[in-house]
Amino acid sequence: MNTQNNDNKVVLVIGAGDATGGAIAKRFAREGYIACVTRRSADKLQPLVDEIRAAGGQAHGFASDARKEDEVAALVEQIESSIGPIEAFVFNIGANVPCSILEETARKYFKIWEMACFSAFLTAQAVARRMVTRGRGTILFTGATAGLRGASHFAAFAGAKHGVRALAQSMARELGPMNIHVGHVVVDGAIDTAFIRDSFPEMYARKEQDGILNPEHIADNYWFLHAQPRDAWTFELDLRPWIEKW
Amino acid sequence: MNTQNNDNKVVLVIGAGDATGGAIAKRFAREGYIACVTRRSADKLQPLVDEIRAAGGQAHGFASDARKEDEVAALVEQIESSIGPIEAFVFNIGANVPCSILEETARKYFKIWEMACFSAFLTAQAVARRMVTRGRGTILFTGATAGLRGASHFAAFAGAKHGVRALAQSMARELGPMNIHVGHVVVDGAIDTAFIRDSFPEMYARKEQDGILNPEHIADNYWFLHAQPRDAWTFELDLRPWIEKW
Amino acid sequence: MNTQNNDNKVVLVIGAGDATGGAIAKRFAREGYIACVTRRSADKLQPLVDEIRAAGGQAHGFASDARKEDEVAALVEQIESSIGPIEAFVFNIGANVPCSILEETARKYFKIWEMACFSAFLTAQAVARRMVTRGRGTILFTGATAGLRGASHFAAFAGAKHGVRALAQSMARELGPMNIHVGHVVVDGAIDTAFIRDSFPEMYARKEQDGILNPEHIADNYWFLHAQPRDAWTFELDLRPWIEKW
Amino acid sequence: MNTQNNDNKVVLVIGAGDATGGAIAKRFAREGYIACVTRRSADKLQPLVDEIRAAGGQAHGFASDARKEDEVAALVEQIESSIGPIEAFVFNIGANVPCSILEETARKYFKIWEMACFSAFLTAQAVARRMVTRGRGTILFTGATAGLRGASHFAAFAGAKHGVRALAQSMARELGPMNIHVGHVVVDGAIDTAFIRDSFPEMYARKEQDGILNPEHIADNYWFLHAQPRDAWTFELDLRPWIEKW
Repeated sequence: MNTQNNDNKVVLVIGAGDATGGAIAKRFAREGYIACVTRRSADKLQPLVDEIRAAGGQAHGFASDARKEDEVAALVEQIESSIGPIEAFVFNIGANVPCSILEETARKYFKIWEMACFSAFLTAQAVARRMVTRGRGTILFTGATAGLRGASHFAAFAGAKHGVRALAQSMARELGPMNIHVGHVVVDGAIDTAFIRDSFPEMYARKEQDGILNPEHIADNYWFLHAQPRDAWTFELDLRPWIEKW
Repeated sequence: MNTQNNDNKVVLVIGAGDATGGAIAKRFAREGYIACVTRRSADKLQPLVDEIRAAGGQAHGFASDARKEDEVAALVEQIESSIGPIEAFVFNIGANVPCSILEETARKYFKIWEMACFSAFLTAQAVARRMVTRGRGTILFTGATAGLRGASHFAAFAGAKHGVRALAQSMARELGPMNIHVGHVVVDGAIDTAFIRDSFPEMYARKEQDGILNPEHIADNYWFLHAQPRDAWTFELDLRPWIEKW
Repeated sequence: MNTQNNDNKVVLVIGAGDATGGAIAKRFAREGYIACVTRRSADKLQPLVDEIRAAGGQAHGFASDARKEDEVAALVEQIESSIGPIEAFVFNIGANVPCSILEETARKYFKIWEMACFSAFLTAQAVARRMVTRGRGTILFTGATAGLRGASHFAAFAGAKHGVRALAQSMARELGPMNIHVGHVVVDGAIDTAFIRDSFPEMYARKEQDGILNPEHIADNYWFLHAQPRDAWTFELDLRPWIEKW
Repeated sequence: MNTQNNDNKVVLVIGAGDATGGAIAKRFAREGYIACVTRRSADKLQPLVDEIRAAGGQAHGFASDARKEDEVAALVEQIESSIGPIEAFVFNIGANVPCSILEETARKYFKIWEMACFSAFLTAQAVARRMVTRGRGTILFTGATAGLRGASHFAAFAGAKHGVRALAQSMARELGPMNIHVGHVVVDGAIDTAFIRDSFPEMYARKEQDGILNPEHIADNYWFLHAQPRDAWTFELDLRPWIEKW
């Protein structure tokens, strides 16, 4: 963790629409960070912003398309100039849509990459350029088992997640010696979300025995990584429920 | 290797502009395959086509942009309807252009992915759809160490190559049980090409002691993979010169 | 972390002779655990035991050879029957002795494996057998980059460390669903120890810029892993200084 | 492949009792190599030796315990002094015996390592010391998926196979630049052996559809690796039947 005197340090969470991104924003806000959270449409962010503020924290929601270089540049400029320096950055956009390789459309293969990998490049790069001028910062990516293994029917999602991991590794090796901590969190298992609850009830039923990931517990790991002193930085850790097969 | 009676079996090599793609085409042509070779501009293919024909083989050159879905579809349709069934497919487009993550442009990051990964998806899928109807075929991808490891200054290339490896793994797992052999060749080292000779003379100097890869020797491995009987298929092998550090 | 009512929960650290093992023992002792620490000769343990007690903690030192099945059985029995249940276990014996494969002796190859891998099996198994009867516990192994990669001149050490990682993975997969959290910490870099200070002064000089690992910071990660709730367990994380090449 | 003038080049296969080792010996004998084959008891080697000789090849059987340093030294000395230089070496001893980590005995854990890993070290080292004096040679290890992944109930076997892979990697990196080609073959699937036929009939039934590995086809890969020119050496390749899940 990089210490500083100013009190307006920002955590930027790209893709705070889901449970994980929101939990990470709340976790950092509890530690005094100003949570800047984005998703494509702003209205769905308001409940998260309200929740953080109700708990005494600071938060700002931004409608921003992470796939658009100019929108990304404007977002980072706005935050840095009017809110505070981005000390921690979390990329949390996924796009887990399985399909047979024989049926996959070129459009969907591209869209999944654009959403889950290209936007990671655009946003992480924009933030890294600011961090290196200050000589400090943390950049964290939400990964998945698909980033390590191309399973049947997951060519598109695995391709994007492999790309994110390659990006994270490359950034860690280049930016680490500039005092930027780059990390990659491999989430291996279902997360406690409305989506899982509604679409995979039998999976959700494992919640009773702690069989799906609690977003708040995931968030604790992001905070832990950010707080690591620089003589002992973690690049990668995995997270999975105790009963998960792997 | 899948046996068949017809004599017009085709090997399609996408990206036959460089030494490796050309050597693979020549290797398969020597075994009786009709070599269909592509690159973006046809004129540079003519010497390869001529060379194969002069040696008694059959070859056809196609100007085709592997990043364009309609061009890919037209290419595969033309070959299958007028030349013969594609029994072996080799994707051999690279885009090894290093750059600091702080300097990389969004355009170049995209272009490298489009050229080295998206076109792999488009072409391999188009061919796989034909192969599954026949219940046989071989699909081989030229990989690189960058597909396994994101080195500093290689975020774009490593991202694309990781994506290709994820694609290859996913296809291997889905299509293997349909009798399609999918393989990934990790080339780790400089290849004996005009590019290396002209741009990296000190690297090229290793040629005297077999320190750079001979494209013909690389090609032997592609043929070997294609010829493996299906009870013992290789998904991945690496190739590197004896003196290469790794 | 597994909660319980009894106040005599034990952390057992095998190989507490070096800085890392000692720091882990102190970290858990600060959290209220009774630190049971071992090394082959007891006398060198006394300063550690004294330090923990002086800080208000509880500690016991044991001279125990982790390579001897009967000594291991006696150690575990003694702790469990007279001190308390082993809730957390840390295996921390290394044996990083490089040698050319042409010069390595059979005796040393065996000794390195016996010390760094066989003793991990013996001790972790003995503790696991107790933990499964209670349905809870944490088992952590100190790993190294040599557990992931066999470098030149490291056949013996890499072999032992690969074996430990295989053991950890296998135990994690079998014992996880029994509520035993098994983890593997990949330490990649020099640690701030007397050995490094005396033998590799140029490496030790990096300490000024946080370039070698602080054992207390390593210990924080072991505690963090132990404290993870079971819906989000980490199997593996790496630790390296910010300036380390990898 | 290393060329030479003498006609008495030897392939030494350690563990030629099973189908794979025997097939490798026969394959090299067909290419003109003198096959020296070992297992613990000589009598079972005779049919293999007879078969090679009946086919016009040269073969010698040796009862030799690969776990005994002095027996290994004597074996290599005898071959080198009275038969010919060992140009190719294959280590092919396995010990795939699953067991719960809670039930595994220390004796068995040790025996599996001693048989499958320690003997690999002893034999490969003894041969490597001869090869480096000639500046050529090939050293191949039969690996398994257990060398890459520690599955539940496979702590002992995975530990040994991980150790073999670490050994192979370390030797490859050190000896490659000395013109010794070191390779590791990952066999992933059941092999067509009497053991599989008798003990796993349902698995053996897959043979009809090429669902288990033919030892002769495995052997072709060992020969192929040996024959690779040194500008394009493979360290590792995997082999699995087309219908195998992975």
